[in-house]
Amino acid sequence: MAKELVFGHQSPDTDAIVAAKAYAYLQSKLGYDVEAVALGEPNMETNFVLNYFNEPTPRIIKTAANEVDSVMLVDHNEPQQSVSDIADVTVTHVVDHHRINGFNTAAPLYYRAEPVGCVSTLITELFDENKVEIPAQLAGLMLSAIISDTLLLKSPTTTDKDRAAIKALAEIADIDYETYGIEMLKAGTNLASKTDAE
Amino acid sequence: MAKELVFGHQSPDTDAIVAAKAYAYLQSKLGYDVEAVALGEPNMETNFVLNYFNEPTPRIIKTAANEVDSVMLVDHNEPQQSVSDIADVTVTHVVDHHRINGFNTAAPLYYRAEPVGCVSTLITELFDENKVEIPAQLAGLMLSAIISDTLLLKSPTTTDKDRAAIKALAEIADIDYETYGIEMLKAGTNLASKTDAE
Ligand SMILES: [Mn+2]
Ligand SMILES: [Mn+2]
Ligand SMILES: [Mn+2]
Ligand SMILES: [Mn+2]
Repeated sequence: MAKELVFGHQSPDTDAIVAAKAYAYLQSKLGYDVEAVALGEPNMETNFVLNYFNEPTPRIIKTAANEVDSVMLVDHNEPQQSVSDIADVTVTHVVDHHRINGFNTAAPLYYRAEPVGCVSTLITELFDENKVEIPAQLAGLMLSAIISDTLLLKSPTTTDKDRAAIKALAEIADIDYETYGIEMLKAGTNLASKTDAE
Repeated sequence: MAKELVFGHQSPDTDAIVAAKAYAYLQSKLGYDVEAVALGEPNMETNFVLNYFNEPTPRIIKTAANEVDSVMLVDHNEPQQSVSDIADVTVTHVVDHHRINGFNTAAPLYYRAEPVGCVSTLITELFDENKVEIPAQLAGLMLSAIISDTLLLKSPTTTDKDRAAIKALAEIADIDYETYGIEMLKAGTNLASKTDAE
């Protein structure tokens, strides 16, 4: 099976970075040859998360067609949010939680979307369905994405599935997600790193 | 929860009719208020199937917005294959096995597609995931849809999932799907009902 790249949207948030890593891990367990990459530098919050869980920053790509024929999208579907040469590759899989807009394919594909607060919630379900265990470190990353997208389960987009996923992931990661979550959200608005002018 | 209509594409084939019935049954078990309808008269093959399993013909609609605000699509997503006033209703769920083309939404939705031979195969999986039992009569209808879409597992679009689903459904329906399948496919090209001119 030819290698595929897995990535989230441009100007990545924590969910875009983490969901790519989580989905790539799952798909590799299911036999796909995949690499999670990113379409831009992680933001401050995501850097805190990657550092906290001792996870490397993903490789950043500007184009995909120079490396692969096929890609898997997470946390987005709209072409203008995707890799610049998205029209030149085949999208074989999408896992998302946004509206569908301007996304067209030439062939049938795997498309999985639900109106949940975070796509890492949906990926948590996919691990369960496929009976693949989530490693503790990955569970920590995935619960960080849910904290980020739902503002610690406070945003109006939060669903019961997000609440269930964060609890299950916190147990696997062995972490107090509320204490950690406040620390993480603070890191995303890190006043200390700003200059006086800001 | 407000009532929603569930339907397949215009000029319905057996999968379009049956998948609407199967998905409506599953969603009703999951608490939705739904009615399976059709966008046109069943063809000869589908009439044979409905008659064989003593299942009523679905109600045929020309428009949806006069009845409901929201709909669920099966076996299609392209607006031009859908109900004439699809732009005037909200699509909350799609279960499909075709390419995505021209399908845009204003809000996040539930979208489930896989490149399998028949959408009734995917719906068989959804029953399993949701731990809802498939009644014997419905299993008979669903295996008929798989026989129709895959030409009795002979079409190049047939996947291992279609083969697994048809076997599971045949067991539930207690039917020899190969013998039945040949009879069913013959009924779809019923020479006896044609005039000499044809
Ligand atoms: Mn995002
Ligand atoms: Mn997200
Ligand atoms: Mn069809
Ligand atoms: Mn079909």
